[in-house]
Amino acid sequence: MADARQYFTLPSPYRMKRGGELLDARIAYETWGTLNAARDNAVLIMTGLSPSAHAASNAIDDSPGWWEDIVGAGKAIDTRRWFVICMNSLGSCKGSSGPASINPATGEPWRLDFPDLALEDVGHAGYELARGLGIERLAALVGCSMGGMAALGCLAQHAGFARAHVSVCTAPRAQPFAIAIRSLQREAIRLDPNWNEGRYDDAHYPEAGMNIARKLGVITYRSALEWSGRFGRIRLDPGQREDDPFGAEFEIESYLNAHARRFTRAFDPNCYLYLSRASDWFDLAEYGGAPDPATSVRNALARMKLERALVIGVETDILFPLEQQQQLAEDLRTTGTDTTFVGLDSPQGHDAFLVDTGRFGAAIGQFMDAS
Amino acid sequence: MADARQYFTLPSPYRMKRGGELLDARIAYETWGTLNAARDNAVLIMTGLSPSAHAASNAIDDSPGWWEDIVGAGKAIDTRRWFVICMNSLGSCKGSSGPASINPATGEPWRLDFPDLALEDVGHAGYELARGLGIERLAALVGCSMGGMAALGCLAQHAGFARAHVSVCTAPRAQPFAIAIRSLQREAIRLDPNWNEGRYDDAHYPEAGMNIARKLGVITYRSALEWSGRFGRIRLDPGQREDDPFGAEFEIESYLNAHARRFTRAFDPNCYLYLSRASDWFDLAEYGGAPDPATSVRNALARMKLERALVIGVETDILFPLEQQQQLAEDLRTTGTDTTFVGLDSPQGHDAFLVDTGRFGAAIGQFMDAS
Repeated sequence: MADARQYFTLPSPYRMKRGGELLDARIAYETWGTLNAARDNAVLIMTGLSPSAHAASNAIDDSPGWWEDIVGAGKAIDTRRWFVICMNSLGSCKGSSGPASINPATGEPWRLDFPDLALEDVGHAGYELARGLGIERLAALVGCSMGGMAALGCLAQHAGFARAHVSVCTAPRAQPFAIAIRSLQREAIRLDPNWNEGRYDDAHYPEAGMNIARKLGVITYRSALEWSGRFGRIRLDPGQREDDPFGAEFEIESYLNAHARRFTRAFDPNCYLYLSRASDWFDLAEYGGAPDPATSVRNALARMKLERALVIGVETDILFPLEQQQQLAEDLRTTGTDTTFVGLDSPQGHDAFLVDTGRFGAAIGQFMDAS
Repeated sequence: MADARQYFTLPSPYRMKRGGELLDARIAYETWGTLNAARDNAVLIMTGLSPSAHAASNAIDDSPGWWEDIVGAGKAIDTRRWFVICMNSLGSCKGSSGPASINPATGEPWRLDFPDLALEDVGHAGYELARGLGIERLAALVGCSMGGMAALGCLAQHAGFARAHVSVCTAPRAQPFAIAIRSLQREAIRLDPNWNEGRYDDAHYPEAGMNIARKLGVITYRSALEWSGRFGRIRLDPGQREDDPFGAEFEIESYLNAHARRFTRAFDPNCYLYLSRASDWFDLAEYGGAPDPATSVRNALARMKLERALVIGVETDILFPLEQQQQLAEDLRTTGTDTTFVGLDSPQGHDAFLVDTGRFGAAIGQFMDAS
């Protein structure tokens, strides 16, 4: 299977929000469909913390993408009509520059010398990428989870950059429960002696810390409701159990083990730390200039000059609770954006946007078709 | 301050549910009030995972107890009327026998050689303790959180042992979300190299693992709602921040740090592992003999021969969701027990029974006064 990634070199130096700069930094991205002559059919997707730019299969890489059911010909984001771009976040390890990529000044991986990363840097990189592809204005900017915050950060810096915005399972600012979870995930990695202040290698890798961080992620990405129906108190067969007095005994434990195994070596721990912290830091209220955050968020949204928006979330999401999406939709409406709010009762929690693609696809498709 | 603990030696050998036995094992307990001549005014309290037997101050130890606002003269559990006993769980490290106490066969701490612990063993120890104090039947058996499961385990083994039962923030069987959380807490301890298969000492102590386990506990013991109101996105003053690029920056992180600091050296890691796993294992449905768990739980409750019950919980509890208490109350009613159900909207999550003592005290006091 070939690699469908393309690479865009960001303007150099690329100045970071919190100080520091990157030289010749790049963004990995994939595209589907064709940019029309008017260059007004572009849809840019910003991802959650860990996905790559491979949102869907395409002619070069036919492996299924992380949003395979949503992006494609005849699908919710119909690639026969839209020129779809999905970018790997700045700071990630799936082709874009980040703590795991090479610092050109030293020839070594950046590790913790990578400058502080803000989601505004991720969002601004998306703006630069679109400009680099000759796109002045997006038909729609789509942001999922962390990518939803990056998208708001992008729009806060670049008023009018998108006609429409699709905000999926995200929030304009993290609440303390989400901060607590992410802080603990970071701490699990940092407490692993193999993390070694970011100087690990394949032979000395913070596997234990990543394992805990990922499991805690999965616990908060899904929902108690889903698990009660799916796993209940089902036990593993004796043959499946580990030979360890405290090893996995319930199916739910084995499910977490499988998730962790797939992730720990597939995502760079330092990149994880940077993107996780950036998620805590992001606060749209910084862009509104009012003393109280609620007014500031509304002010910031008003300045984005969005024509239309779809805000979508699920009732069982404990990381980005539905109340936050409901408030975001109300605020967008108040500030003159034609806004559709969809609150789903999917049982899968935060991850529903990756799993309950039938309902997400229906809502997103209806919105996109009306564009 | 003197130590108010008394000790009761369990019948020896004390046979454990899952095999193995203890010789000369003991239970630490404290008492308040006076057992009357009829010996029918005894109230036994079984605690959550970590508290000691010191539920309230008394003449010998005037330090505040963990349920100081609930237990005392003129309080919800009025020690002028009731002879109140609070026991430290078998398997804990607050005076009762457990993995941290000495194995008489070797003169060394039991550590992982302690037999498998079930909450039925904890509950049965409470029965033996009461019998040892000359009490045939309790006026009320009170169980909070893990102690609520131990209490159900006790009553499942000893029908008619209590006239009334107060079930606080607990469940007849853990759901997979709670199992997932506890499994991850145990894994954090076990992955700490200093845990060393249970052979740690003060100089080589699984501090990092206990730190993560405790923080994850606090996250699930409280609620997102409470934290949003209490901490929001408040930042620490620069002077309070650690000199670490990923150190605590938000107040919620500092709050978690403070909780972890108070706990990690105050509770024995092996005892934590045993009690945590026992909480996953407990399943009242084992005592009902029906093929489906729901019917089995009802059967088991019917056999307890309780006259009255109070079942109390809170809407924001994610570890023992209110639906479980509501179901427990319905089942008790169905099986002929005069049952009061109180569902509170306290914002403090599972910990509300330790914090929102005004409302818990009112409900418990009303129930106890009507006895």
